[in-house]
Amino acid sequence: MIVVMQPGATQEQIQAVIDRVAEFGFQTKLAPGAERMVIGVVGSPLPDTLKEALERLPGVEEVIRVSKRYKLVSREFYPLDTVIQVRDVTIGGNEVVVIAGPCSVENERQILETARAVKAAGASMLRGGAFKPRTSPYEFRGLGEQGLKLLAKAREETGLPIVTEVLSAQHVDLVAEYADLLQIGARNCQNYLLLEAVGRAKKPVLLKRGMAVQIEEWLLAAEYIVAQGNEQVLLCERGIRTFETFTRNTLDLNAVPAVKHLSHLPIIVDPSHGTGRWFMVPAMMLAAVAAGADGLIVEVHPNPDHALSDGAQSLTPENFAAVMPKLAAVARAVGRSLRGVATAEPSLSPAD
Amino acid sequence: MIVVMQPGATQEQIQAVIDRVAEFGFQTKLAPGAERMVIGVVGSPLPDTLKEALERLPGVEEVIRVSKRYKLVSREFYPLDTVIQVRDVTIGGNEVVVIAGPCSVENERQILETARAVKAAGASMLRGGAFKPRTSPYEFRGLGEQGLKLLAKAREETGLPIVTEVLSAQHVDLVAEYADLLQIGARNCQNYLLLEAVGRAKKPVLLKRGMAVQIEEWLLAAEYIVAQGNEQVLLCERGIRTFETFTRNTLDLNAVPAVKHLSHLPIIVDPSHGTGRWFMVPAMMLAAVAAGADGLIVEVHPNPDHALSDGAQSLTPENFAAVMPKLAAVARAVGRSLRGVATAEPSLSPAD
Amino acid sequence: MIVVMQPGATQEQIQAVIDRVAEFGFQTKLAPGAERMVIGVVGSPLPDTLKEALERLPGVEEVIRVSKRYKLVSREFYPLDTVIQVRDVTIGGNEVVVIAGPCSVENERQILETARAVKAAGASMLRGGAFKPRTSPYEFRGLGEQGLKLLAKAREETGLPIVTEVLSAQHVDLVAEYADLLQIGARNCQNYLLLEAVGRAKKPVLLKRGMAVQIEEWLLAAEYIVAQGNEQVLLCERGIRTFETFTRNTLDLNAVPAVKHLSHLPIIVDPSHGTGRWFMVPAMMLAAVAAGADGLIVEVHPNPDHALSDGAQSLTPENFAAVMPKLAAVARAVGRSLRGVATAEPSLSPAD
Amino acid sequence: MIVVMQPGATQEQIQAVIDRVAEFGFQTKLAPGAERMVIGVVGSPLPDTLKEALERLPGVEEVIRVSKRYKLVSREFYPLDTVIQVRDVTIGGNEVVVIAGPCSVENERQILETARAVKAAGASMLRGGAFKPRTSPYEFRGLGEQGLKLLAKAREETGLPIVTEVLSAQHVDLVAEYADLLQIGARNCQNYLLLEAVGRAKKPVLLKRGMAVQIEEWLLAAEYIVAQGNEQVLLCERGIRTFETFTRNTLDLNAVPAVKHLSHLPIIVDPSHGTGRWFMVPAMMLAAVAAGADGLIVEVHPNPDHALSDGAQSLTPENFAAVMPKLAAVARAVGRSLRGVATAEPSLSPAD
Repeated sequence: MIVVMQPGATQEQIQAVIDRVAEFGFQTKLAPGAERMVIGVVGSPLPDTLKEALERLPGVEEVIRVSKRYKLVSREFYPLDTVIQVRDVTIGGNEVVVIAGPCSVENERQILETARAVKAAGASMLRGGAFKPRTSPYEFRGLGEQGLKLLAKAREETGLPIVTEVLSAQHVDLVAEYADLLQIGARNCQNYLLLEAVGRAKKPVLLKRGMAVQIEEWLLAAEYIVAQGNEQVLLCERGIRTFETFTRNTLDLNAVPAVKHLSHLPIIVDPSHGTGRWFMVPAMMLAAVAAGADGLIVEVHPNPDHALSDGAQSLTPENFAAVMPKLAAVARAVGRSLRGVATAEPSLSPAD
Repeated sequence: MIVVMQPGATQEQIQAVIDRVAEFGFQTKLAPGAERMVIGVVGSPLPDTLKEALERLPGVEEVIRVSKRYKLVSREFYPLDTVIQVRDVTIGGNEVVVIAGPCSVENERQILETARAVKAAGASMLRGGAFKPRTSPYEFRGLGEQGLKLLAKAREETGLPIVTEVLSAQHVDLVAEYADLLQIGARNCQNYLLLEAVGRAKKPVLLKRGMAVQIEEWLLAAEYIVAQGNEQVLLCERGIRTFETFTRNTLDLNAVPAVKHLSHLPIIVDPSHGTGRWFMVPAMMLAAVAAGADGLIVEVHPNPDHALSDGAQSLTPENFAAVMPKLAAVARAVGRSLRGVATAEPSLSPAD
Repeated sequence: MIVVMQPGATQEQIQAVIDRVAEFGFQTKLAPGAERMVIGVVGSPLPDTLKEALERLPGVEEVIRVSKRYKLVSREFYPLDTVIQVRDVTIGGNEVVVIAGPCSVENERQILETARAVKAAGASMLRGGAFKPRTSPYEFRGLGEQGLKLLAKAREETGLPIVTEVLSAQHVDLVAEYADLLQIGARNCQNYLLLEAVGRAKKPVLLKRGMAVQIEEWLLAAEYIVAQGNEQVLLCERGIRTFETFTRNTLDLNAVPAVKHLSHLPIIVDPSHGTGRWFMVPAMMLAAVAAGADGLIVEVHPNPDHALSDGAQSLTPENFAAVMPKLAAVARAVGRSLRGVATAEPSLSPAD
Repeated sequence: MIVVMQPGATQEQIQAVIDRVAEFGFQTKLAPGAERMVIGVVGSPLPDTLKEALERLPGVEEVIRVSKRYKLVSREFYPLDTVIQVRDVTIGGNEVVVIAGPCSVENERQILETARAVKAAGASMLRGGAFKPRTSPYEFRGLGEQGLKLLAKAREETGLPIVTEVLSAQHVDLVAEYADLLQIGARNCQNYLLLEAVGRAKKPVLLKRGMAVQIEEWLLAAEYIVAQGNEQVLLCERGIRTFETFTRNTLDLNAVPAVKHLSHLPIIVDPSHGTGRWFMVPAMMLAAVAAGADGLIVEVHPNPDHALSDGAQSLTPENFAAVMPKLAAVARAVGRSLRGVATAEPSLSPAD
């Protein structure tokens, strides 16, 4: 059950709700939004008499029963679409947004060159890993803070906001100092202490789906972040683990309409990890936008054969530039536009 | 290794190839195509001396080493796109084709009403099950031959070619008498005797991917059909089995660019089984075409709540009709057209 | 709902039940057992008034509501353990039974040599494939009827009953002429026409679980066989398909206590396909019996490196003989005995 | 490549190895063991000339090429079995060890009562969660440090060493103050910063396999811990995520012989999470030990119906006590003994 307070509700009115809930023997969880306080009531089953008692309290706007295990992120709770602001970029509205960049920041030349190229092709944000989770301890694990500084330099030059992964609660402050959008990787999708740490940060969060995480569990992971008061959560489908071995993961585009149905949060798609093969990435970029995704995050590397990580799934800047006009055409076909690419009438021929 | 004979090669020339291969201790497999005989050489490793010996024989056009386990269906063997003709409908060319209809044929009124509705909305073929594989022996298993007759009646009235499932080698002749396109269901994807039986039929085959079948194994299943001389195989991705329970299956759209890369066969997508939820079907129809699918097969039922099977995943005729113009717009955005829907310039607004 | 008739119920009494059910608008399904007729009532929801009406009819012993989708194979329906008789071998009782032999029958010497060796080591039945389903059309597919004859010869010499796979409804009569236990392979677990065909045969059936078949669906597959009047169904867990690639399949030993809980049918385990690696087979043989399996089916080949199929997962006769005394000790530890191996007190040392 | 130094090798000799490797352009990773330094050489491909150069250096005992991606945990590197000491309990030797206790520590009475009961039945260690990762933020998340204190109290009273989960690198010091064995949960199996933090702790670590983690990746996760100098790693198979829904997870007992083949680390099994259903737990306890597991970790709760977490998979103390003599019999059948249970000759009857 969720108690939505009126915009100007006082601290006393909020406390009165908390006390009333406690009298019924249940607990509360505060979700202070930008404009109004939301109070989650935790417990099951919650009696109708409690709902009625709360509705009568001053300062209460609405009391909503939520049938799902996730509450604050459910569409039942908030029927509109959440829109996220990352500097001057808006995600979750009519414009489709593309984030691009290398898997790892390797050196200044590589990140600057990539940033310029993806911006020229229409990307709206720059991705790049400074702290990398790697399956083997003997693999390249990123440049650390030096990588963050190079990302900041690339932002300075190109104006592109930057997204980079944060691996641990201890790193949140450091990474948030540089990043505009904090990425939680697939392996940390259910690292609840980290989720709560970014929930307390004042930066938007990109939450990747874990490799074996069901959609309901993913939304519950997002609930951990939002329950800390950070409503700026962007979900990212990046493929799940199945028996198929031709692809690195199985990109579950079903997740796009499923999330749109269940939640008000925006969702983007990562076709690079979702396929693991660069030649499949353009097709899945188009498919993701057609399915209703609010954006994409794509690996682009100036020299994939020599990338320190994920070369096999990285597009060259040329391949990336080639697919963007087609992406704009697909966005237009589903009634949207592609941020960063002029929406002039496409004149594609079958040979494209 | 594959030996491609010249178009006019004689029986003697073919026999000479077979004999030469036998001298080297290997076996041959004949794949008589419409225009030329192809001789597969089975065994591994095959020596270079054999390749050279065969290239010198009269009537031999080309000898090709195929690195994949599947040979005749591989793009290495045939680099162009196979195009399949089902009556007046062409699949695998520039036009995207939509097959629609109920899961099961239930009665005359239901199938005729559906056939008219899907045709009006732009469908190019009619689907409907007469022999249904059901998980429980206590569920409705189809009308059998009576269902086939009703499909034929619907074809007569609407002109739509019909596709229906064949469950067993014994049924192939019966089903082929009525159907224009023989469907092999997911549960029979590796029923090799059935595959060979439809391989000997003179009708095109729609081969659904099995629930736990890897892409390579699926292509090997197609190889069983083509190796019998039937090159008219249409692949159909319909979702694989994973840990996700919100959806009935996980639609693996990665399979579309993967199959296009590996094989020359056309591929269509079934978003009804691939999601199991009707409200997700339109989004995944658009995504499949954006990914490069040559067509779709979609369940449409005039009254899904009372369907004898698969009601939860069936579109109403109204919902089906509503998505078709959007599908045409997506097809156009990727440089194709949608068969059955006028390709006038779409003027979609964001509110669509 | 299931109506159990009294042992001597007449045809008229049975017909009266069928008629009464029809008056309520539902259908019946006859399951003629060795001693008594069982009548399944199909439909949902079935009213209490129907149950009461049937209980009053003469010749009716009991009317049972079955909450599961599978009825005749459920433990709710029959709370004891079904015991299956294959010639002189009893499966499902206190004795654990081992079936062993090569994946494929290759030639007379191979099958006779293997049969003698596995019998000497304590095997109770001989396995061997004559009709083999193979992923690729270019692989060895078995000797066909010649293989069946060689199996019969091995039986004649050793006295071991034989189990072999039947691939198609058309082959049931032929295979049943030779085999003592008809095997349905994993790929045909949901080939319902084949299940019904073996359901009409008068031979016990070994039903392997499909690679992506849930336990409930597997029991429904068994229901297809039993619903045809053949109650002699032996389930076989052989591994399911998962993301793990080190093993060929993931042997799901959970299935053993699950099936024992849900069904009265006996269950055996195939650790050869369940692991795909011969050096893991002995450990999983022991584990399966400890979990409560009624038997094992194990691949043994005199020369695994030269086997025409499945060499990597075949034990040598020596390895097979070495594990059997340990298996007897584990069987004894769980209160059972191992058929074919003397149950003398084991005196294993840690070095074993 | 791994360079094993002689037991008394000097700092200079070690530095000489590092320098020589650097001259070849590769990096080193030190693994200081209790008795000798091991130096991992990172890079690929490593030339034979490097191996020869290192073998000639003073203080070098052996240079070993390791073909696997994991090095220090591989059996290639150390062919014997690692034995782990947790207070007076030895894991990985001939004795099978059972760890038992509730999912969460709920209150003093609950943990003390359980500790006494499991000790009386033969358990060798006590488990109990103080910091719980929960899928939903609204579920009970453990008592925190208060829970650790209650565990310590239970240890004081019963003498049982305690194992409890650590969720974050920040908590390692706190948890290590109380726990004898630090548990890394399935969701943190690839939380590499946490793995490294426990790698620096001076306590043995129990590393659970992640829900979608392949055996190779699991061993690489263990490598993260060992590479920090902590060789006391105990692996724990607890079920993987598959399409099967009757069970909570699919317990992958194949992992037991696989890990024994690939690694020298001991492995235990968690049949509680591996099945999710208490009535299946005893069968899988027996199976795990028959497969070769070095121990078990089992959830036991005095009142499962009122447990704050995981009640459905918890044994009562009575059920736990009932299975222990059978477990001792199975251990004995495979040449081992069960720590805590007298190894008197079992006299089990079939009715057991």
